[in-house]
Amino acid sequence: MWKLFYSPGSCALASHIALEEAGAKYEAVRLNFGAGEQQKPEYLAINPKGRVPALATERGVITENPAILAFVAQSHPKANLAPLEDAFGFAAAQAFTNYLCATVHVAHAHGRRGYRWATEQSSFDDMKRKVPDSMGACFELIEREMFKGPWVMGEAYTICDPYLFTIAEWMEGDGVDPKRFPKVLDHRTRMRERPAVKRALAQQGRG
Amino acid sequence: MWKLFYSPGSCALASHIALEEAGAKYEAVRLNFGAGEQQKPEYLAINPKGRVPALATERGVITENPAILAFVAQSHPKANLAPLEDAFGFAAAQAFTNYLCATVHVAHAHGRRGYRWATEQSSFDDMKRKVPDSMGACFELIEREMFKGPWVMGEAYTICDPYLFTIAEWMEGDGVDPKRFPKVLDHRTRMRERPAVKRALAQQGRG
Repeated sequence: MWKLFYSPGSCALASHIALEEAGAKYEAVRLNFGAGEQQKPEYLAINPKGRVPALATERGVITENPAILAFVAQSHPKANLAPLEDAFGFAAAQAFTNYLCATVHVAHAHGRRGYRWATEQSSFDDMKRKVPDSMGACFELIEREMFKGPWVMGEAYTICDPYLFTIAEWMEGDGVDPKRFPKVLDHRTRMRERPAVKRALAQQGRG
Repeated sequence: MWKLFYSPGSCALASHIALEEAGAKYEAVRLNFGAGEQQKPEYLAINPKGRVPALATERGVITENPAILAFVAQSHPKANLAPLEDAFGFAAAQAFTNYLCATVHVAHAHGRRGYRWATEQSSFDDMKRKVPDSMGACFELIEREMFKGPWVMGEAYTICDPYLFTIAEWMEGDGVDPKRFPKVLDHRTRMRERPAVKRALAQQGRG
């Protein structure tokens, strides 16, 4: 059985929801980031990056949300979580998950993890002050240019949806007013009603 | 015919090399970042993010290196640029391209584009000082844990290779001594000899 390593409130929720949507057989394993479990030798043997999500399978470990999401979709084709037979459609979905991973999540991370990229407290404070701006600009681009509706990629629910939901849940904490982004806000509301989302949140103790 | 939008010295080289390896029909379109062409309305109509690479196809535009690389591999199956029939192998390759995109490239970007995440000159200077450390740590992880050899994913050359090559070319400029990473350095040397790499570099005026 697969194991998904996660921390509550982290981006691993995206992969967690996708596993639920796919009907995958897996176990969710919680890491206590407060106790630094992600940096202990036991976990570094699984994921040397010391991050989540990580999906342990019978073949080995997959890391990075976009890779896990595509993997869940490809290994559960009946769940229709990505346009698997259409290279362009698949690439368009991946362009979206990559944007969330490499730009939006990175902007968010500057609010609490500035030590990854700087050393001085004054820099951390400066980074933290910019988060509402940089996250707001990301959601503006998503709202205006990327979100097709009713789901991210249009009529079909895909792996993009749980990932957008996961990051959209961070808006208030990042000082971004969700009312500025009616499509994203409506999407977030509808996502919360999906059984798979409820199950993943409940498993993470956030139900 | 496809169009690849790039800027010399940017990460778009990864997609450019992959297109050459695949034998794709495409035209490389150079953007002058010094003149701010990536922020002009003509280009924002193609890629609202104002970044490169962007691959314009008959179906629409694909952005983000990992998405373009997977697309090139999937649309040119005979080139064998990814394990397309093996969801786990494909995911493992994508985990690597995602790491380069969302962690390694992001660490690099703090040397010159700190304004994305902060406002003060002192923060930019602080970020710049940390680049040798953060990039060094990334290459350490690649050298020790990720690189299988002789190519990134093992015996088969994949989309991971041009991307690693592209970012490994930045080491000296980022204050990282390549001699610390013999596998990555040897890979970079072998990559430079590949005809597809030479063609892409020549097209970018770096041959």
